[in-house]
Amino acid sequence: MTSTDGFSWTKADGLRPGIPCVGAIQPPTNIKSADIEFDVIVVGAGYAGLTAARDISVAGIKVLLLEARDRIGGRSWSSNIDGYPYEMGGTWVYWGQATIWREIARYGMQDELESSYDFSRGINKFLLASTDGTQSFTHEEEDALMQTSLSKLFNVDGRDGRDALPMPHSAHLTPSDRRFDTISVADRLIEIKDILTPNERLCLEGFVLLCSGATLATTSFYEMLHWWALSGYTYEGCINHLVRFKFRGGQSSFALRFFGEALDSKNMSYAFSQPVVSVQNGPHKVQVTTRSGRTFTAKRMISAVPLNVLDAVAFDPPLQEGKAAAAKTGHVNQTIKVHAEIRDRDLRSFTGISYPHNGLIYGFGDGETPAGNTHVVAFGGLHKHFHPEDDINRTISEFHGFTPMHIERVVFHNWSRDEFAKGAWFFSAPGLLASHFEELRARQGNIFFASSDWASGWRSFIDGAIEEGTRAAASVRADLIGRFKI
Amino acid sequence: MTSTDGFSWTKADGLRPGIPCVGAIQPPTNIKSADIEFDVIVVGAGYAGLTAARDISVAGIKVLLLEARDRIGGRSWSSNIDGYPYEMGGTWVYWGQATIWREIARYGMQDELESSYDFSRGINKFLLASTDGTQSFTHEEEDALMQTSLSKLFNVDGRDGRDALPMPHSAHLTPSDRRFDTISVADRLIEIKDILTPNERLCLEGFVLLCSGATLATTSFYEMLHWWALSGYTYEGCINHLVRFKFRGGQSSFALRFFGEALDSKNMSYAFSQPVVSVQNGPHKVQVTTRSGRTFTAKRMISAVPLNVLDAVAFDPPLQEGKAAAAKTGHVNQTIKVHAEIRDRDLRSFTGISYPHNGLIYGFGDGETPAGNTHVVAFGGLHKHFHPEDDINRTISEFHGFTPMHIERVVFHNWSRDEFAKGAWFFSAPGLLASHFEELRARQGNIFFASSDWASGWRSFIDGAIEEGTRAAASVRADLIGRFKI
Repeated sequence: MTSTDGFSWTKADGLRPGIPCVGAIQPPTNIKSADIEFDVIVVGAGYAGLTAARDISVAGIKVLLLEARDRIGGRSWSSNIDGYPYEMGGTWVYWGQATIWREIARYGMQDELESSYDFSRGINKFLLASTDGTQSFTHEEEDALMQTSLSKLFNVDGRDGRDALPMPHSAHLTPSDRRFDTISVADRLIEIKDILTPNERLCLEGFVLLCSGATLATTSFYEMLHWWALSGYTYEGCINHLVRFKFRGGQSSFALRFFGEALDSKNMSYAFSQPVVSVQNGPHKVQVTTRSGRTFTAKRMISAVPLNVLDAVAFDPPLQEGKAAAAKTGHVNQTIKVHAEIRDRDLRSFTGISYPHNGLIYGFGDGETPAGNTHVVAFGGLHKHFHPEDDINRTISEFHGFTPMHIERVVFHNWSRDEFAKGAWFFSAPGLLASHFEELRARQGNIFFASSDWASGWRSFIDGAIEEGTRAAASVRADLIGRFKI
Repeated sequence: MTSTDGFSWTKADGLRPGIPCVGAIQPPTNIKSADIEFDVIVVGAGYAGLTAARDISVAGIKVLLLEARDRIGGRSWSSNIDGYPYEMGGTWVYWGQATIWREIARYGMQDELESSYDFSRGINKFLLASTDGTQSFTHEEEDALMQTSLSKLFNVDGRDGRDALPMPHSAHLTPSDRRFDTISVADRLIEIKDILTPNERLCLEGFVLLCSGATLATTSFYEMLHWWALSGYTYEGCINHLVRFKFRGGQSSFALRFFGEALDSKNMSYAFSQPVVSVQNGPHKVQVTTRSGRTFTAKRMISAVPLNVLDAVAFDPPLQEGKAAAAKTGHVNQTIKVHAEIRDRDLRSFTGISYPHNGLIYGFGDGETPAGNTHVVAFGGLHKHFHPEDDINRTISEFHGFTPMHIERVVFHNWSRDEFAKGAWFFSAPGLLASHFEELRARQGNIFFASSDWASGWRSFIDGAIEEGTRAAASVRADLIGRFKI
C-alpha cells in the first residue's frame, strides 16, 4: 500500500510525493450505504482515535471511525522502503510511558524493539557544529555536557526541578506550573546566562529546539520542564524516554494492531479519505458531515482532531470559548524531520548538533539499512524553517551541516504543509496551557475531545494519544451505560 | 465491611483477628443456582484476576469470578481504621509502572496519590541500628550511602547494570540473565566484600532483605538486578518506583474500581469464600470444583492463583512438568509487614534500618493518622522470622529496635500463615526463573495462567498482576473470537 502522504527522493527517481505505508487501508471503507447511524463516531484515526475506536468497539458498542487521510496513525507513521522502516513522525517508545507500554505488553511486542543508537563501531563521536567550526566529543563527554547544561536550565529549586514539578501526570496545573508557563526558554536562558559555558549553551538550545520545534522565545519553559519531569529529571531519562527505542517493524505495524482488533470485534465501521467539515452537536445526537457530503449520526462523538486543525471543523454550536481560543492560538511546533540513507557506514555512531546557522539542528545515526548503508535522521523547526520538498538540494546540503556525507535517499513528511496536522507534535508557547489546559480536556455536549495535545501525562507523545483515547472511550462508555463511574 | 483477614491490636482491645476492608464484598455471591455454565472462569480476585475478569466481561463475554477469601485484592488490600488506611500488602504505585499507571489514568485517579515520606518536620533522620549501636544520618547522607552501596552491588559491567540487563521488560531470559540467576546476593556480596564499608554493607543487606523478604543466600541476584533495572539503575529510581506514592483512599478503593466496572457490564458473576480445590482441564471445557462442593464449567479458565499455593489445587490432567516443579519449589518471600500508630509525632520523618539483630529490619514514617499520631510501617522476613500475632509484646518491642516509640495500635496481615498466599510478593531463590520462567507463563489446554509471580516486567508488583490479567484476558478473548492475534 502507498499513502499520498510523504516524499521520497533518490538521484535516479528524483523527488516523488507519496510513499509506501502498511497503515494505508484498503478498501478505504467498509460502510454500506444504509449505515448512517452509530452509537459513537470517532473522528481521526491517529493513536487517540484508534485507541478510542478499539476500546469502544471491543466493548460491544457500534462505532464509526472517520479519517481524513488514506491511512491510520495520524502524526505517527512509518514507510517501509526496500524492507526498512523510516518513521515520518512519532517514533520512540519506552516502558516509562505507561499507556503505550501497556499496549506493547498487551500485544506481546515487548521484544520487538531496538535501540536507535549503536555506538559499537564507526566514528563514535558527538559533533558540535557552530558558526565557530566543528568540535568533536566522545559520547560520554556529550552526556556530561547535556546533563550539566540541562540541569542548569531546570534547576529552579536546588533539586533540578524535582520540587518544582513533583507530579508530572497531574490532570491539573498548579499555581507554580502556571508561573513557569508565563516565561519562555529564552526568558529562562537570560536568568542563567552567566553560568552557562558557550558549549553548554549550544547543546542546551539545540536540545530544546529538538523538543519544541519552535524558537526559544516561543517555547514555554513550563512545557519544557514538564518533559524533563516526565523523563525523571535527568538527561539519561530524557534519552531513554524520548529517543532510544523504536519498533523493528515501524510504528504503522503497531497502529495496525489497534485497527485490526477493532475490526475483528465486528463493531467498527470505517471510512478513510473522508475529512470532516462540520459537526452538529445536538441534545440527543451528533451529526457529522464529511467533505464529500456524506452525513452520519451517533449518540456521542469523539473528536481526535489535533489542536492546530480543530478550527477547520465547523462545530454547531461553536466550540466553547476556551477551546476556540486555544484552537485559534494553536501550538508552535513546526518540526522538520528528514531521513537520509547514506553510504558512510562510519556515521552509524555519530550524533550531532548544528546550530545556530543550520536548518537541520539535531541529527544522529538511527539505523542500518538492508543495503548496509547508514540511516541518519535529522530535525529542524521554526528556527531557520524550510520546506524540504521546495529545494531538495538545500535539504541535502543541510545534512552536510553536521559533517560531510554521501546521501543516496531522502524521505520525509512535511508536517507544516499537512492540512490535517498543520504542525508536528504539540508544543506550546507561554500561556496556552495556563489559560486553556483544563478547557481543552473538557467534554462539550455529546462530544468528547481526545488528543495527545492535551494529555495530562505524556502530552505530545503517542503515549499521551493513547492515554486520551483510553479516557474518551471509558467516558463515552460510562455515559452510554449510565452506571460505572470513570 | 470486615474481612476475616488481618489482625489489629490496641491496649484497650488486645489482639483481634479480622479488620475492616472496603474490598470485602457483600453479598458474597450474585450467582443464581442455575448458573453453572460460563464462557470463562477466573480463579482469584487479586489484581490479576480482577483485571482479567473486568477486561473479559467488558468485552461482552460471560465470566465467573471465584475467590477463596471474603474480599478482593489478594496480596494487596487496605484496612480503613478510624478513617485512616493501613496497607496490608502491595501499596506503592508509580507512573514508571506502565500497566497500573494506565489504570490509574483511566479511572482518573492520578491526583489521588500522596507521598509516604514527609521530611518537612520532626527528627528528619535515617537511623542505622546495628549490633554496634545506632548511628544517625541526614536523609541526604542516607541517599548517598544507599546509592553507592547499591551501585557496588549491581555494577557488574562498569555501567551499574545498564549493559548487563538492558531490557527488563523482555518476556524471555537472556543467557546473561540465566547466569546471574545461578548466584544469590550472598554470593555476589563475597565478590564485592572488599569494596564495601561496614555501613554500606548494613544498608545494602537491609535493602535487599526489604525487597526479597528472604535471606541473602535465598535471594536470586538476577531477580534483585531485575528490580534495579526496572527502577532505572539508580537508588532514586528504586525509591520512586518501590516505596513513594500510595493511594489516599487505600489500595482496596482502587481494586473496587475494577470490580465495579466488571459488575456494571452485567457479564460478571462472582462468588467469594469459595476456594477452588480441583480443576478438570478437558478438551472442550474446564470444570472447576470449590471446597463447598459446587461445580462450574466454562470454555476457558484463567488461574490467578499465586505460585506458592498453586499445588493446593488438584489439576486434572496435572500441571505441566515445569509448572509443577516451580510450584513445588515456590518462591521465598516471607515478608512480615507491620504497621504501628505511635504518639511520637517527631518520628513522621524517620527512616531506619535495624540489622542484623532485629526481626523488623526496615521501617519509616508512612503517614499521619487523623488523631495526629504518626503511622510507622516496618518490614521483616525470613531473616529472624517471627509471627507477629504469636507474641504481640515481642512485635511491639521489634519496633523499638529502630528507636524508642509509644505504640498505640498495631495492624498487620500474616502472609506466611495465609493459606491462600503462603508468602508475600514473589521473590525467587537462585535457579527458579532460569529453569521455569517461560513455562510458568505458558497456557495449558484451556487454562491460562495469570499472576504477578511470572509477569515479564514488574513481576511481584501490582503492576505485574495487571500486566498478567491483561495478557490473559486478551489471549482468552482472541482464542474465543478466533480472529485477532495477540
